[in-house]
Amino acid sequence: MNVPDRAVQEVRATHAAWIAAVNAGELAQLMSLMSDDVVLINPDQPPIGREGFPAQFAGAHRQFELHCSSDPLSITVAGDVAYTCARDELRLTPRAGGASVQLAGHRLTVYRRDADGRWRLARDAHTLAPVPD
Amino acid sequence: MNVPDRAVQEVRATHAAWIAAVNAGELAQLMSLMSDDVVLINPDQPPIGREGFPAQFAGAHRQFELHCSSDPLSITVAGDVAYTCARDELRLTPRAGGASVQLAGHRLTVYRRDADGRWRLARDAHTLAPVPD
Repeated sequence: MNVPDRAVQEVRATHAAWIAAVNAGELAQLMSLMSDDVVLINPDQPPIGREGFPAQFAGAHRQFELHCSSDPLSITVAGDVAYTCARDELRLTPRAGGASVQLAGHRLTVYRRDADGRWRLARDAHTLAPVPD
Repeated sequence: MNVPDRAVQEVRATHAAWIAAVNAGELAQLMSLMSDDVVLINPDQPPIGREGFPAQFAGAHRQFELHCSSDPLSITVAGDVAYTCARDELRLTPRAGGASVQLAGHRLTVYRRDADGRWRLARDAHTLAPVPD
């Protein structure tokens, strides 16, 4: 496998690891997969960084069972930076009972390869919104 | 000015040129500012590329007078790739008359420096949504 192909596979694996950790509620794993200066852009709220993430993530997991899937439509690697466009779906099931909410949208993510050779999520913006019934 | 600083200024200028061309309705300028493989992610619709852009842009300009502003919160350059996070505002004023709609949100943009030395917009995702009255 040549170097660019290998990098694409590494980024694909990092993308999948992120989604798996979201679904499993593995906060420590997510923190290890994001860059020091990460910026996450979500609809209808200010961008958040490392400091803001744990409270937001824990709050969402307390309220809902999350099931997210993300299908990369393109993965582009340029040196130690990569970016992906993905089609995402997210189902939120209230832990207190009640109907699930299904969301869908797209996601642009920027990954960076740090000095330790590992790819980390550096920037992310998505357009997930409730799917009309 | 050192090389990274110069690149940051070039990306900032490209970002501003894009917004100015949106407001002025300069489709040819926008086409020259986007990469061959551009992907634009907008809320509530499938991603579009070069082929889909002209019809969408012309349709919006036919219906509305657009005034967009975009304030880059961070600009990061890594070789021939750069990414920006910006706070955006957009006012849509119906040409047929009636009240303007004000939108606000954030934008993640990936720029790429092509072989001709010019930066072009390669990926973009934003969360612009109507501001509640």
